[in-house]
Amino acid sequence: MAKIYLAKPYGFCSGLKKALSLINDCEKKYQHIYCLGELLHNPLVIKDLQKKGIKMIKEKDIDFLNNLSKEEKKVTAVIIRTHGISELILKKLENFGINIINTTCGYVKRVCLIAENLKKEGYWVVIVGDSGHPEVKTIKSFLAGRALIFKRNLNFKKYPKIGVIAQTTLAEDSYQEALVDIIHQGQPKELRIFDTICPEVKKRQKEVKKLAKEVDLMIIVGGKNSANTKRLVAIAKKAGCKTIWISTGEELKKYQIPFKKFGKIGIASGTSTPEEFVNLVIKNLKKEVTER
Amino acid sequence: MAKIYLAKPYGFCSGLKKALSLINDCEKKYQHIYCLGELLHNPLVIKDLQKKGIKMIKEKDIDFLNNLSKEEKKVTAVIIRTHGISELILKKLENFGINIINTTCGYVKRVCLIAENLKKEGYWVVIVGDSGHPEVKTIKSFLAGRALIFKRNLNFKKYPKIGVIAQTTLAEDSYQEALVDIIHQGQPKELRIFDTICPEVKKRQKEVKKLAKEVDLMIIVGGKNSANTKRLVAIAKKAGCKTIWISTGEELKKYQIPFKKFGKIGIASGTSTPEEFVNLVIKNLKKEVTER
Repeated sequence: MAKIYLAKPYGFCSGLKKALSLINDCEKKYQHIYCLGELLHNPLVIKDLQKKGIKMIKEKDIDFLNNLSKEEKKVTAVIIRTHGISELILKKLENFGINIINTTCGYVKRVCLIAENLKKEGYWVVIVGDSGHPEVKTIKSFLAGRALIFKRNLNFKKYPKIGVIAQTTLAEDSYQEALVDIIHQGQPKELRIFDTICPEVKKRQKEVKKLAKEVDLMIIVGGKNSANTKRLVAIAKKAGCKTIWISTGEELKKYQIPFKKFGKIGIASGTSTPEEFVNLVIKNLKKEVTER
Repeated sequence: MAKIYLAKPYGFCSGLKKALSLINDCEKKYQHIYCLGELLHNPLVIKDLQKKGIKMIKEKDIDFLNNLSKEEKKVTAVIIRTHGISELILKKLENFGINIINTTCGYVKRVCLIAENLKKEGYWVVIVGDSGHPEVKTIKSFLAGRALIFKRNLNFKKYPKIGVIAQTTLAEDSYQEALVDIIHQGQPKELRIFDTICPEVKKRQKEVKKLAKEVDLMIIVGGKNSANTKRLVAIAKKAGCKTIWISTGEELKKYQIPFKKFGKIGIASGTSTPEEFVNLVIKNLKKEVTER
């Protein structure tokens, strides 16, 4: 019978746990709570938050908040999600006089601070990450015209001083590959490289890399729009392990996989996957392993 | 008939030209001139200097200078060569009250300053270069216990902040290889890389790399104990070109090479090779090409 191995840590990352606890604290305090963008990349969790009355709004639509009356503003709050927000929008909200629940992750704050300092010291800053990701947009906002999004064979020669940072959820291997590409392009006068990958993300990636080599099947649990979950899937596949990616415990049945035929099954989860989801996967998997 | 191509720049580098001019200026001013170590890595030039009365002495033997009388000290000078010297020895000489002719190359001064600043800011400093070279010893003296000489698979993980610098005469390719090796070992929290290779050395290397691909034979002129000349030879060979390394114009005959059979012949020189040597090689080569 199949043995199940759970990669740790699992469930929400510490940043999200803190964010959700902050939001929880003020659910009774405010009548209207808005979140700028989706709080996290997990549609089911988002649905739960919406049920509680939290509305997801887009940055471009925030102006209505300024038109609220003084009394309405008192009972309204805006959540800044863990990915952070541009300095410009934050200033705007502050000027609105609206309540702000800032849940920006500490690791994102750190990379923004590094970016800002690099800019002040005259560096051009290369961000290794996904240009469309909200975190990268936040970081960019601290760099004005000094940001370069990494791509292969970008010509760095015209920039004498270059700083390099990574999106906090980037895979370590991808960062390494990007750095080697930069080095191969010839040396700027000064090159400054910061390890800004979140230690928890790093630990999950490391665990998946290790576990995928030991088990016969890897199940990665997380939202299909979660970048860090996507990376765990890629890492498991790269290690040569048969890998499935599910969002919920129920999805397991869809695959029609004879789970009990596998000797060892590994489970890992993205940072925006609640612990309960993972527990449900384990529960359902145990059923599958014994029933089928 | 063979065509001759000369890689530029050739002859002494600007640092050595300046050093020799400084020495020239004070030859009449002082009765006794000592040089700490060999001024440059070219035995014939050294012989010339010795003929002029300049004595090469070792660092460990400098104490006799302190025992000179006040009058003797007035007419005695010590040359600090382009490779620089440790802070400790410099201080010692200053305390002796002896005249110092400091010809330390500007590029060496720059790398020492970078090293010192990195140390002050809490970095461990990796020097990519030859641990036995006087320049590397000079740089190390600014780093106290914070210096690490680069070698493959050195374990950098225990150092959170790492600065990397290169010996000024290192080949660009070697620096790049070392940096990739460092990157592959996993990221320190912060990695700071400086391009400290001398621009003139770099230019010579680039020219040799290019020329070696175009000609049928490369002749590198320079002292057999000159590290930068040795690198030019390696670069030409790596480019797949037949390469000979000679110290003087006379040495050309030794090789018994049918020079006129070659379509294109390239000539390049190390930074410690006088222009006259290169001119003599060209003169003798022209003779060989027409006579043999």
